[in-house]
Amino acid sequence: MPDINALLWPRHVALIGASPDLDSLRGRITHTLVSHPFAGQITPVTRSHAEVMGRTAYPSIAALPEPPQLAVLIVPAQYIPQELERCALAGVKAAVVLSSGFAEAPGDSGASLQREIAAIARRYDLAVIGPNAEGFANTAAALCPTFSPALEAGARPLLPGGPERGQVTVLAQSGGIGFSFFDHGRAKELAFRYVVTTGNEACLETMDIAEFVLAEGKTQALILLLEDIKNPATLRRVAEQALRAGVPIITAKIGRSEAGVRAAASHTAALAGAYDAYRAMFERYGLIEGFDIDEMIDLAGAFLACRGRLPAGKRVAICTASGGGGGWMADTCAAAGLEVPVLDADTRARLDLHLPAYGTSQNPVDATAQAVHKIGYAGLARLVIDSPTIDGLILVVTARSAKNLARQRADLEALVATAAKPILMWSYTLPAASSITLVRDMGYALITDIRNCARAFAAMADYRTLRERFLKPIEVRPSMPAERAAATAALAGGEPVLCEWEARPLLAAYGINSLAGTLATSADAAVAAAAAIGGPVALKVQSPDIVHKTEAGAVLINVASPSAVRSGYGKIVAAATDRLPSARIRGVLVQPMAAPGQEVILGIKRDATFGPMLLVGLGGVNVEVLSDVVLSPLPLAADAARGLLSRLKGARLFAAHRGRPPRDVEALVDVIERLARLAADFAAEIAEIDLNPVIVHAQGEGVSIVDALVVRRGVGAPAPASFT
Amino acid sequence: MPDINALLWPRHVALIGASPDLDSLRGRITHTLVSHPFAGQITPVTRSHAEVMGRTAYPSIAALPEPPQLAVLIVPAQYIPQELERCALAGVKAAVVLSSGFAEAPGDSGASLQREIAAIARRYDLAVIGPNAEGFANTAAALCPTFSPALEAGARPLLPGGPERGQVTVLAQSGGIGFSFFDHGRAKELAFRYVVTTGNEACLETMDIAEFVLAEGKTQALILLLEDIKNPATLRRVAEQALRAGVPIITAKIGRSEAGVRAAASHTAALAGAYDAYRAMFERYGLIEGFDIDEMIDLAGAFLACRGRLPAGKRVAICTASGGGGGWMADTCAAAGLEVPVLDADTRARLDLHLPAYGTSQNPVDATAQAVHKIGYAGLARLVIDSPTIDGLILVVTARSAKNLARQRADLEALVATAAKPILMWSYTLPAASSITLVRDMGYALITDIRNCARAFAAMADYRTLRERFLKPIEVRPSMPAERAAATAALAGGEPVLCEWEARPLLAAYGINSLAGTLATSADAAVAAAAAIGGPVALKVQSPDIVHKTEAGAVLINVASPSAVRSGYGKIVAAATDRLPSARIRGVLVQPMAAPGQEVILGIKRDATFGPMLLVGLGGVNVEVLSDVVLSPLPLAADAARGLLSRLKGARLFAAHRGRPPRDVEALVDVIERLARLAADFAAEIAEIDLNPVIVHAQGEGVSIVDALVVRRGVGAPAPASFT
Repeated sequence: MPDINALLWPRHVALIGASPDLDSLRGRITHTLVSHPFAGQITPVTRSHAEVMGRTAYPSIAALPEPPQLAVLIVPAQYIPQELERCALAGVKAAVVLSSGFAEAPGDSGASLQREIAAIARRYDLAVIGPNAEGFANTAAALCPTFSPALEAGARPLLPGGPERGQVTVLAQSGGIGFSFFDHGRAKELAFRYVVTTGNEACLETMDIAEFVLAEGKTQALILLLEDIKNPATLRRVAEQALRAGVPIITAKIGRSEAGVRAAASHTAALAGAYDAYRAMFERYGLIEGFDIDEMIDLAGAFLACRGRLPAGKRVAICTASGGGGGWMADTCAAAGLEVPVLDADTRARLDLHLPAYGTSQNPVDATAQAVHKIGYAGLARLVIDSPTIDGLILVVTARSAKNLARQRADLEALVATAAKPILMWSYTLPAASSITLVRDMGYALITDIRNCARAFAAMADYRTLRERFLKPIEVRPSMPAERAAATAALAGGEPVLCEWEARPLLAAYGINSLAGTLATSADAAVAAAAAIGGPVALKVQSPDIVHKTEAGAVLINVASPSAVRSGYGKIVAAATDRLPSARIRGVLVQPMAAPGQEVILGIKRDATFGPMLLVGLGGVNVEVLSDVVLSPLPLAADAARGLLSRLKGARLFAAHRGRPPRDVEALVDVIERLARLAADFAAEIAEIDLNPVIVHAQGEGVSIVDALVVRRGVGAPAPASFT
Repeated sequence: MPDINALLWPRHVALIGASPDLDSLRGRITHTLVSHPFAGQITPVTRSHAEVMGRTAYPSIAALPEPPQLAVLIVPAQYIPQELERCALAGVKAAVVLSSGFAEAPGDSGASLQREIAAIARRYDLAVIGPNAEGFANTAAALCPTFSPALEAGARPLLPGGPERGQVTVLAQSGGIGFSFFDHGRAKELAFRYVVTTGNEACLETMDIAEFVLAEGKTQALILLLEDIKNPATLRRVAEQALRAGVPIITAKIGRSEAGVRAAASHTAALAGAYDAYRAMFERYGLIEGFDIDEMIDLAGAFLACRGRLPAGKRVAICTASGGGGGWMADTCAAAGLEVPVLDADTRARLDLHLPAYGTSQNPVDATAQAVHKIGYAGLARLVIDSPTIDGLILVVTARSAKNLARQRADLEALVATAAKPILMWSYTLPAASSITLVRDMGYALITDIRNCARAFAAMADYRTLRERFLKPIEVRPSMPAERAAATAALAGGEPVLCEWEARPLLAAYGINSLAGTLATSADAAVAAAAAIGGPVALKVQSPDIVHKTEAGAVLINVASPSAVRSGYGKIVAAATDRLPSARIRGVLVQPMAAPGQEVILGIKRDATFGPMLLVGLGGVNVEVLSDVVLSPLPLAADAARGLLSRLKGARLFAAHRGRPPRDVEALVDVIERLARLAADFAAEIAEIDLNPVIVHAQGEGVSIVDALVVRRGVGAPAPASFT
């Protein structure tokens, strides 16, 4: 195992490519490295100078009297492999490769150099970040092997002074953006523990660093900029570890659009998985998605300030001296999915004693400037915070000058020390730097963007709910040996595609029952089967070679008379053979017409990064055109399936409407749970499953699976093109 | 006409309630007023002091040797009417009433005082803002009659130094929020002309000030915080005036949610119209909606920097030295509705000459730090800006330190002076104050929020498109005298509700033709009418007293045989009479069943603030549940109707789909245009119109109006409850 401790906590660091020239990147990193009060040793390595910035330089790593734990390399790409090997031979345990010109460059020479780096790291068990990285910062050690201007020793110390506070760690492939979180967050008085940028990730990935950081237990919030995930299992592991520890992961994904994917590919040679699949992972594991640097910093700041008392629900009280500010915040909270309920009568009566006639205690509580002047922000909040109608509070303040807040310091500190519910502050005026420090020292989060404030409250409530569900014993039903055995048997054949009739035993193995039906291999048999059904029927050619039956004219519905069944049989078999003369026809499936209900599409598809994902979408022509589809990783317990369905934009279509009873959602949840379990158990054997349509009938009347198709993995010929 | 010039540009100001006590609001406003270098005269009026802050004080306004143009009043509410009248009698032309305790307080005494203020202002033709206002700032005159801490004379001058730049004016009812725009914007080096806060608006409204400001012609962008609109005609006039002048209005509406409406009502006694109607007004008149102070400031800053060269379309090039930053910006642009196309081959070839192998010219153009260091931001932008594939450019920069930008100043200034397309800068690092000043002095907008940057580009493109359409000769078809005459005749009766049959002549007057049909007043006549139609028919009882026919059982569809028509006739007439024995039955409408198509609901409804609005929604059970409805003010030309339809979430339902031809959108547009014209021409006579459903058939096959209902205004009994 590469030693990440040697990377982040070395006692001795060698800088290979050190330079005194402050106009060069080499000089800038040398200067940044030596100008922070790092307690360990820093040794420049360069052939051009005997001394760099007051430190003795050595011509090569081998020449050092003592081997350093960490080597920082900033020499041209083509020299990196040999230098890295020299480091390993000299006893170095970890390296940061800052040079560019590897897999992100066109042609194979850079990629080949990068493969060499990976091989050397493996061979010598080195902890390597890069190449094409911007380095890292460990603020507690005052160690900053990076040329990021944000980490130049300067006006602002690496860590805020004042009371000890929760710490945030930033992990990013992109150096520019990674360090900009520090830049923005430090101005908001956030305490950063590490900022680590990993570049092309030839060896260590952000996820490896995340595991180290979580195990260390000194980080209370993670900011994660994702370009790609090389190993989805690590993401799952990290996400679960973080959830258990209650460390929120605030993440932004680059590559949400076609142009973004294009950029990521050229920039760090990332092959981004589908954004839909990432979103499904985020929803499942409670990763909080951010879309702007300040938004993510504000989210992290809110979580740090409110840890231990995240909101139990989404009901928020707003206390304000500015009527306009309170109204605006109320609208913004509603848009973020929060409730702003009228407060209970007791709370209002207590408030009304303090408010002038032109204030209001309803919610937003517009106390007016006069009352706030008298009882202070804390006095106002204390009157409201224990109301049973709310889960937390947003204080609308003006932090323009610190004077007013400083006067209320003791009172505000006492409030936050005892409040069982979270309190966020939104300042509509631009806060002075001294206000930001003061508010953070008092233990509050101060947010200036109104949307970020409401979003932070909502995200904290969502996170708490999801985490509490996660910490409960897992409800995923284990598959029975009999289920596995039956499915294994159903998969024994060598066909790459199973048509509906062939898919039935596989689905049935896990208790997923298709609509009744008979496979007829002659027109006579079809007529007999239809007679047995006794109403209009559907006729469908069954062939593993014809995936798009309807388009091939190989399906007839609402066939009512025996003569129509007879002629229909011949017609659709002819149409199928016409479409593909070599098609192997298994027969014609004769089925009753399904009762009406809400059409749903249900399936398993494979994401390039995350593997099998369950897909649910709303069918029916209107909703199909609107592409209302959601994904989930596997496995998927019934509870999670219910949550998944509620994420559909048209989820209301399942509810009762104008006298129509509600749909049988529980029956659908049952099928989803079984399908997800089947796909998870046989992830190596099954590529895709398509149940389309599934008709969800009225409550208590179940679902009808009207058509099915299974595409297998690693069997016979390549599967036909994706059918969803 | 009240003299707004006397309000904003007085030569002499009296402060009634002046005080030397800096701990009081009175003292703070006195101090703010006298400490700015206002060139005119400021006279304190107070009975308690002979001199206040070095200026001779007078015991009453009448005692002043010369009458001031403007009086600023900050005395208890109950004294305000008499003081205001004294001012008027002394020759004052304008007043700012800062005191609270008027219509925003519960009970009638405050409201009654406010009515007195309004009456006095009318009587003496005074230009009055307030009560419950926070005053205003006129930066050019250095006149700040406000107690807002944001306007205390201090570190930052009221106006930025440096080259003259475009100016923004802020208008708000809310003082706290109004001045916070100044606070946030001034830190971003925006030049403000006026900040005017109007409080309860007993007399002048923000819209009146807006008219003055637009006529003055010195303001290039308006920020407007809306709580309510007392006179929608003024909003229209202001919006049109601003569009003609090319002054964008960036607006936030308070009262978008139930809690927000509650807050606005208690705060400024505002009765907010429906937010949907406001949104329709914004869309129609190109008002740009903002949702956060910094977002609105960033939008204003972008418009000011890019005026004269707003983007002609939504294709954007992204130039960056940070790969991660470029990818993130590409995603954010896509999410904002922008396109990030791959650049044309010529541009790429030019770029490739300057990029190292690990850069890319596709778009985002990742030039790498190395190339940007060599050719500069301007050099890079110049290689891209003239590409025919893009409408503008976003430069991803790091403005952390001003040094680097200062070195490139001449080049960047030359670029912006000659570029025909807009260039926005996004800095992912937090810019130093000196960077902000420098970038703004060079003529660029510098945005640090990635979403605000993409949004600003998109908003500028939308604004330009909308404005160019607006400036074209108006395409609203005038109604013919024959149309008006026929409609007037159709409205001659005294009924408050017109059932479908009765609504037909009115609709037909404007060329809106319902589905064919015959009114049968006997079962025999119904059978004969059905026979004449010759297929299955619909039977619908016609009664002005039964609005909900279907719920009353007074409708039958798909009636196929003569006997079924006969029995159906009796059945539905009985059902109608059963529901309401007093119902006047006009007969039974016998109609063919309409051909299938996309169901739409179409109507006119009245908004409490804006009057008649046209409503279009997608019908069909799925889409109805999803409430996909949009509104538009009247009148509505065909072009605007097309735009309106494109705003439906399910607009794609009109397009061709799986072999089905596209719907006849032009026929629908024609009906919309006629309906809107009818409703506009007869706004005084018609309260609501409901065409539901309208079935839009395949292209070239028109629409079928299957049902109709008209509710009239000011006729007979009150209309039944709204039916949409």
